[in-house]
Amino acid sequence: MESASTDLFTARLESAAFRVEAMLETILGQQAREGEIVRPERLLSAMRYGVLNGGKRLRPFLVIETARLLDAPPEPALRIAAALECIHCYSLIHDDLPAMDDDDLRRGQPTVHIAFDEATAILAGDGLLTLAFDVISSEETALTADIRLRLVNALSRAAGIGGMVGGQALDLMAEQDRPGEERILELQAMKTGALLRYACAAGAIAAGADASTVARMTRFGEIIGLAFQLADDLLDVTSDAATLGKATGKDAGRGKGTLVSLLGADAVRQRLAALVEEAEEVLSPFGDRADILKRAAGFIASRNR
Amino acid sequence: MESASTDLFTARLESAAFRVEAMLETILGQQAREGEIVRPERLLSAMRYGVLNGGKRLRPFLVIETARLLDAPPEPALRIAAALECIHCYSLIHDDLPAMDDDDLRRGQPTVHIAFDEATAILAGDGLLTLAFDVISSEETALTADIRLRLVNALSRAAGIGGMVGGQALDLMAEQDRPGEERILELQAMKTGALLRYACAAGAIAAGADASTVARMTRFGEIIGLAFQLADDLLDVTSDAATLGKATGKDAGRGKGTLVSLLGADAVRQRLAALVEEAEEVLSPFGDRADILKRAAGFIASRNR
Repeated sequence: MESASTDLFTARLESAAFRVEAMLETILGQQAREGEIVRPERLLSAMRYGVLNGGKRLRPFLVIETARLLDAPPEPALRIAAALECIHCYSLIHDDLPAMDDDDLRRGQPTVHIAFDEATAILAGDGLLTLAFDVISSEETALTADIRLRLVNALSRAAGIGGMVGGQALDLMAEQDRPGEERILELQAMKTGALLRYACAAGAIAAGADASTVARMTRFGEIIGLAFQLADDLLDVTSDAATLGKATGKDAGRGKGTLVSLLGADAVRQRLAALVEEAEEVLSPFGDRADILKRAAGFIASRNR
Repeated sequence: MESASTDLFTARLESAAFRVEAMLETILGQQAREGEIVRPERLLSAMRYGVLNGGKRLRPFLVIETARLLDAPPEPALRIAAALECIHCYSLIHDDLPAMDDDDLRRGQPTVHIAFDEATAILAGDGLLTLAFDVISSEETALTADIRLRLVNALSRAAGIGGMVGGQALDLMAEQDRPGEERILELQAMKTGALLRYACAAGAIAAGADASTVARMTRFGEIIGLAFQLADDLLDVTSDAATLGKATGKDAGRGKGTLVSLLGADAVRQRLAALVEEAEEVLSPFGDRADILKRAAGFIASRNR
């Protein structure tokens, strides 16, 4: 039996996905019309295909709910959420390329370089990455220049070589390096953790929250990032391709080493439970108002796809 | 015999290149040290290799000289110049990839995916693109939040699908489309024109110049962009690989169509002369103080590599 808070959580998650997709449609639609006469139709189609392909929209959800908790204006938060999803989706498009993870399927659908071609996939990724900074810095994101600038800078760091891109580079090396526990955690904190951390920090920054609140939400985002990756590692060994919509057992098969292969599934499940508790503790000053975000931690830790 | 203004121009061009390379060294050096413990060494090496590979540093020069003309503070202008060069170099790295132009040589040296590998080249491009926004939005770029934000937004548009990335996508299609004169000009204005235009606009924005001055420098940048591309098309048919440091005759060989193949070399040379005159006219309100930028137009129109 689902509890009332679970129902509310699911509703909010679905609502965030719905709204961020509508915003992404708007933003990409503007790109198709704006300014110059010539439009690279095929590139725009590939960008749409890479972005509007379903998915839980977890990062946008975290931006939106953190912003809501701290009373940030909802429309700018939605734009930040959409920009962050552009970054996430660009990284998926590039990661799937033959020279990288060489994946033909993503969420059960052909990846961008399969549905289009490799050159278009590379450019679609580049275009989405660039678009994210356009969206946040734009006047349409109705926040002060100072706040927009902080959001741009924090995003560039989360997505750059000290964050996601750097983590991806380390991940490529991991097949040879066979890293230990500490190294795996650092790599994952960069590769997937940095954007989840940003998602939670961004909501607080958009709200103009004080430094200690931003730090608290950043910490919450870090815990979420850890939980997400541990759950992902569990799924890689326990799920099947049909459920996951992508190949499974790949990390283990490539000898990359995950915490599951290093510590075992049970130990990882225990860690996950501890992380969910820690997330709830970090949010405790907000009381009931943070229920949705607390539930998010549990959802991420126990997700089955 | 070279005139005094030519000598001064050459000295300024070399000085800008020297200083922007030192700034790029500093910025990439910070990335190697900053924050987290783990650093993706190989990725950082590839980024350095892709950025610190010589070249005229024309875009940084234009930022620096436009900023100087309008009394913008030199250190922030240098950081913007370095950020713009990161964008330019990322685009070269991605354009050279096997799925794109498939070039093994760039300025006589192995391209990044040859010197490293394809995956690293893709990530190095992504990293440099992201780093550019980090550099401009950073507090170290000591300009007001409002100006930094305008610089970020204008750069995201110059580099995005309405600019460079879109132009590159159209260029890929041009092999099949065989575009006419108007279409070629639009494509080139996006692919190579947008960053040159930004270079000149950025110096004015950094100076806090009024709207009409920003518009004037933007127009100057557009003319520079046109001249650059026409000169490039001429070089593609008249130069040889040893002088150019890359393959020649490629555009014509691929049937992409350039203005040279469409109108003939003489007509293009006449256009170039007219553009140089127009550039000088646009800068005439600044009198002698704009001599270096006027010379830049002539240099770009008549360059032989």
